[in-house]
Amino acid sequence: MTSQLCRAALLPALIALLFPVALIAQPASGAAFVNTLMPLPASLTARPGSLPINGSFSYAIHGNAGARLSQAAVRFIGRLEMRTGVQLARTPAASGATLSIDVATPASSPYPTLGEDESYTLDIDDHSIALRAKTDVGALHGLETLLQLAQPAGSSFLFPAVHIEDAPRFPWRGLMLDCGRHFLPVDVIDRTLDGMAAVKLNVLHWHLTEDQGFRVESRVFPKLQGLGSNGLYYTQQQISEVITYAAARGIRVVPEFDMPGHSTSWLVGYPELGSAPGPYSVQTVFGIHDAALDPTRESTYKFLDAFLGEMAHLFPDDYMHIGGDESNGKQWAANPHIQAFMRAHGLKTSAELQAYFNTRIEKILARYHKRMVGWDEILSPNLPRDAVIQNWHGTEFLINAARQGHNGIYSHAYYLDHMYSAADVFLADPIPPGSDLTPEQSKLILGGEACMWGEHISPLTIDSRIWPRAAAVAERFWSPASDRDVDDMYRRLAIESIRLDAEGLTHLSYPERALRQLAGAEDDGALALFASTLQPVDFSERYREQHTTQLTPLDQLVDAVHPDPPLRHQLELLVNAALNSDKDPGDKDALDQLQTIFRYWVYAAPALESMAVRNPLLQLETNRISQWPKLGQIGLDAITYLRSGNAPPAGWQAEQTAFIQEAAKPQELVDFVVLTQLQKLVDAAASTKPHPGQ
Amino acid sequence: MTSQLCRAALLPALIALLFPVALIAQPASGAAFVNTLMPLPASLTARPGSLPINGSFSYAIHGNAGARLSQAAVRFIGRLEMRTGVQLARTPAASGATLSIDVATPASSPYPTLGEDESYTLDIDDHSIALRAKTDVGALHGLETLLQLAQPAGSSFLFPAVHIEDAPRFPWRGLMLDCGRHFLPVDVIDRTLDGMAAVKLNVLHWHLTEDQGFRVESRVFPKLQGLGSNGLYYTQQQISEVITYAAARGIRVVPEFDMPGHSTSWLVGYPELGSAPGPYSVQTVFGIHDAALDPTRESTYKFLDAFLGEMAHLFPDDYMHIGGDESNGKQWAANPHIQAFMRAHGLKTSAELQAYFNTRIEKILARYHKRMVGWDEILSPNLPRDAVIQNWHGTEFLINAARQGHNGIYSHAYYLDHMYSAADVFLADPIPPGSDLTPEQSKLILGGEACMWGEHISPLTIDSRIWPRAAAVAERFWSPASDRDVDDMYRRLAIESIRLDAEGLTHLSYPERALRQLAGAEDDGALALFASTLQPVDFSERYREQHTTQLTPLDQLVDAVHPDPPLRHQLELLVNAALNSDKDPGDKDALDQLQTIFRYWVYAAPALESMAVRNPLLQLETNRISQWPKLGQIGLDAITYLRSGNAPPAGWQAEQTAFIQEAAKPQELVDFVVLTQLQKLVDAAASTKPHPGQ
Repeated sequence: MTSQLCRAALLPALIALLFPVALIAQPASGAAFVNTLMPLPASLTARPGSLPINGSFSYAIHGNAGARLSQAAVRFIGRLEMRTGVQLARTPAASGATLSIDVATPASSPYPTLGEDESYTLDIDDHSIALRAKTDVGALHGLETLLQLAQPAGSSFLFPAVHIEDAPRFPWRGLMLDCGRHFLPVDVIDRTLDGMAAVKLNVLHWHLTEDQGFRVESRVFPKLQGLGSNGLYYTQQQISEVITYAAARGIRVVPEFDMPGHSTSWLVGYPELGSAPGPYSVQTVFGIHDAALDPTRESTYKFLDAFLGEMAHLFPDDYMHIGGDESNGKQWAANPHIQAFMRAHGLKTSAELQAYFNTRIEKILARYHKRMVGWDEILSPNLPRDAVIQNWHGTEFLINAARQGHNGIYSHAYYLDHMYSAADVFLADPIPPGSDLTPEQSKLILGGEACMWGEHISPLTIDSRIWPRAAAVAERFWSPASDRDVDDMYRRLAIESIRLDAEGLTHLSYPERALRQLAGAEDDGALALFASTLQPVDFSERYREQHTTQLTPLDQLVDAVHPDPPLRHQLELLVNAALNSDKDPGDKDALDQLQTIFRYWVYAAPALESMAVRNPLLQLETNRISQWPKLGQIGLDAITYLRSGNAPPAGWQAEQTAFIQEAAKPQELVDFVVLTQLQKLVDAAASTKPHPGQ
Repeated sequence: MTSQLCRAALLPALIALLFPVALIAQPASGAAFVNTLMPLPASLTARPGSLPINGSFSYAIHGNAGARLSQAAVRFIGRLEMRTGVQLARTPAASGATLSIDVATPASSPYPTLGEDESYTLDIDDHSIALRAKTDVGALHGLETLLQLAQPAGSSFLFPAVHIEDAPRFPWRGLMLDCGRHFLPVDVIDRTLDGMAAVKLNVLHWHLTEDQGFRVESRVFPKLQGLGSNGLYYTQQQISEVITYAAARGIRVVPEFDMPGHSTSWLVGYPELGSAPGPYSVQTVFGIHDAALDPTRESTYKFLDAFLGEMAHLFPDDYMHIGGDESNGKQWAANPHIQAFMRAHGLKTSAELQAYFNTRIEKILARYHKRMVGWDEILSPNLPRDAVIQNWHGTEFLINAARQGHNGIYSHAYYLDHMYSAADVFLADPIPPGSDLTPEQSKLILGGEACMWGEHISPLTIDSRIWPRAAAVAERFWSPASDRDVDDMYRRLAIESIRLDAEGLTHLSYPERALRQLAGAEDDGALALFASTLQPVDFSERYREQHTTQLTPLDQLVDAVHPDPPLRHQLELLVNAALNSDKDPGDKDALDQLQTIFRYWVYAAPALESMAVRNPLLQLETNRISQWPKLGQIGLDAITYLRSGNAPPAGWQAEQTAFIQEAAKPQELVDFVVLTQLQKLVDAAASTKPHPGQ
């Protein structure tokens, strides 16, 4: 019995032994400035000196700021208190404040608007902090930067002396949440808004209707949510509270009501809107369904006019998203009345019929003073110029839209459910590289959005799907185009991830809990080590493999592993260092570290296998579990050859490569993130040159 | 740079290597039944066989059950789904259900009541499960037991075949939450109720008013919360929702309005109730304040009649708590009017005046059909027999109360803020051992309550203060008196802790987050190892040391360490095994394991010290940090002597003992939990007898 008793106690100890002194970015007092900001500001000048954070810290707000900034300052103080453990005054100082916040222009509206001035400057010296902004939204961003600057340094926390001039590169910096396929309670939305504000994202694109659920209360048409949501929807009161919560953080809320496709849930209560007679029931199956609004009846537009009018009143933002994606036209093709209408109006294809529909909707929205946003599919020659195209296919739609004079929003590269790495999303630029857009056309691209589609997320797992990768997207949208240092991004991302954890996001804590549950014990040892080498397969592969529906429990190993886990980039750094250590003698221990890592995989595998034999949930990953120690052994063998300088036997490289390629094939629900670097080691070992780092 | 990169990746690996195969309580299919239930049922018979949990699992409810049980069954299915990953039918089966739930008597009220029948029987065989109860509350308990029985076993989860007959030992099994000193939002209350239901606690004692805050909305006297709470209070709507949430889980809600002392917050809005003229402001300082209601004016009783009448309507339970503790009588002594009243009525002491007050209040409550509950201080010779005494001083009050015919509730041994171990609270029996109470008098003791006072808790830290220790208290209240096996309790407590983690309680996840924040990195290595050897000092010591107030940030190491962390009892087992291994040859590796543990402390100390030098928050624990490696060295030295069989030099034992005693002294905000076992090792080493386990 005692052999299992000490595991929990010893679990955290490993690393303290292997790498005895290592802390990220906590420079000692007086040390050179270490930039931990995310997103990077447009310009930063470090200066000598620093301002200690102690109980005498105080703040004051000058100029034309309103309640929004006062409340944000109180929140700032509370967060700084939790960060530093120093009890601080919550009310502004009458005079001589340490931090003075100056806002030039009074807020024109309680709600942020596209294109308002978000710039700020921040000056910190040994005695005081000056935060200056044109608008209160700029000041909110400055407070987030200031909080990120606070760092421990010996006997107190401090703010390093800096001069920062900052403004965003793009005005539309969004995150799309799909609450249609899986409902997300308000507290999830709120904490997501906290995370967005921390990294200066400023648009919550709220995907509120889907085949699988109609998530917003309509008082005009109560059967929409009444029959279309299984009781899981936001009341108008809740919607208004979310909008207020977002506005307090400088974030706009743009709702999406997807039409004419993805509309099954509308038709459960109002089948007369459909292009086939029905009856309809809320879908639990994912994918593209045939249900579509009937664009040929005036009664459809009368309904939509009343509904969109109600929503236009509920959502104060100037923009409204009508979806428009993936309307397959099948119901239209099968409906003689619709076919007759198309012939009568010279509409040859379902795309032309949808374009007609879009034009009608655009007119309705214009009357409610809303600009229309839609996915790529709404782009057509006669689309009103005012309409905004959100790009999710290849960028040709974005480029074409800009050529036709439309504003565009880039999303194609930022689909979080595709499990792109933080490096991938960070390097993807909203301005399509190599396109021949004129500067004026490029300016039509307003920014971008990270998209969190809802097939495989729950309120528990969503944070680890969004964070910290969305912070890398946010930096792409905010920081200068020249900011493309992936290694430095990852260094800061690790720090930002901890800061987001402090804000209450669960991207670190929930996966830990999920692994504990799978292991059935507080110390998950081998399972956590295994998990560190894995990421979820992307949306479509999981769907294919598991035949997921809205009802599938999301409690598997795939739900407990991180997209782009830290080990992926860490291995990349280590392998680069190990294979180039003649160029960088400081990293000559990289091979040793790699060896330690691989050895653990081999050692831990029996414990993992023993766990998997007993646990049905782990038996979904039997192949991955059996491949894991072999991957470790390949790494160990490669290191042995690299160290010895002796070439491996003939066929070794081919054999290992074949195994790595086998492990790279889609199988089960998780993917290894270590294969590229293992292949590099194998290839290097297969070269005969003795390695200088041995 | 690379030397820090791999720490996160390797962190979980240690244990997989040291103790390769170890899982708690996941017997393979066909293995003997392992009891993981908490609390233990009154009677359990394991049988051969088991029922696999697969997609065909279904349930049906028969007999006289209402909506409460239907909803609980749906929650049960959802929890079982998350546990097993098997998609299950949410609606009852028309026929042939796997699980049939039979309830004999219809619920007499939507709210649970003291003393209603909570018994149930559970019969599981290879094909079906029968849950039978007299009441729906009994069935709720049975569902919790059933969920605890689900366990992974090879290719599926299963329910082992058992026959259980169960009923609680005590009808009053409570948890007191102090929301006066620190406000706890409704979501914290709700998740606490989930945890209580899981371990069959059935009373939420809600301490709603304190010197530091008046937390309940009064519509009759709106200045109570309006001026007495800094805006942090529960609306009546929220209160009603909590009561409904609790009732759905078989939990009564007993509110406490503390009077005549601990009442500063009442007097901010209504100074005319006070015994001194005021004005009053909400206290941020803890301790016993002088503010007291004036028991000599009829207007006080008129006010309290109206207020308690309002609350009697809001809270449906038959019991209402009036506090009554720690009224220091100073304002009464200083008020000539009050002194004159006392003389006129022959009341010689402030205790007699308080007794007069209590009698008046009891009459008011009786008119509202509420039985009065109060702390020890309300016990007096002429207290109406109906009043219930909650014991928090030594048990003499409980014994005296029972002798005088009062019902009693035992709390003295269950003060969670005193940082008693789970063993301590588990072994403390509500029936005072050795007392000469008659059986009839003993029966007057209704049960007990774990008390969570609010000086040093926040919504973030509270779960780790309550859980899992409250589960050990719950077992004491529910299970037979003969259940006193501490080792077995700890074995099951570790499992229950993981189950409570799955319910959304943050007792495991928040301390991890807090350590990440203190370490400033995802991998907290040395800090987490250090933390595993510590627990918070008790309430009074922290108060003395840190001069805490309501405004003190609760973000220190003390807030991140667990009361009674698992290592404490694990060391006890290991040391016992190591020093008695001749009696238990299976544990002869215990010395090796101890050596590994102590070695880590020594190895990890430099990393911890380096972290502490930079981090002001860790500098509050400088002594503890410097003592830690020395404690590890003492352990290592003791093991060396034990192994060699050579006696240590003269003075060695005295020197080590002195150091251990120094480390045991109150210092800073955390206490070591390892000292008793270290002392045992030192004493054993100092004996000359060669150790047989070497």
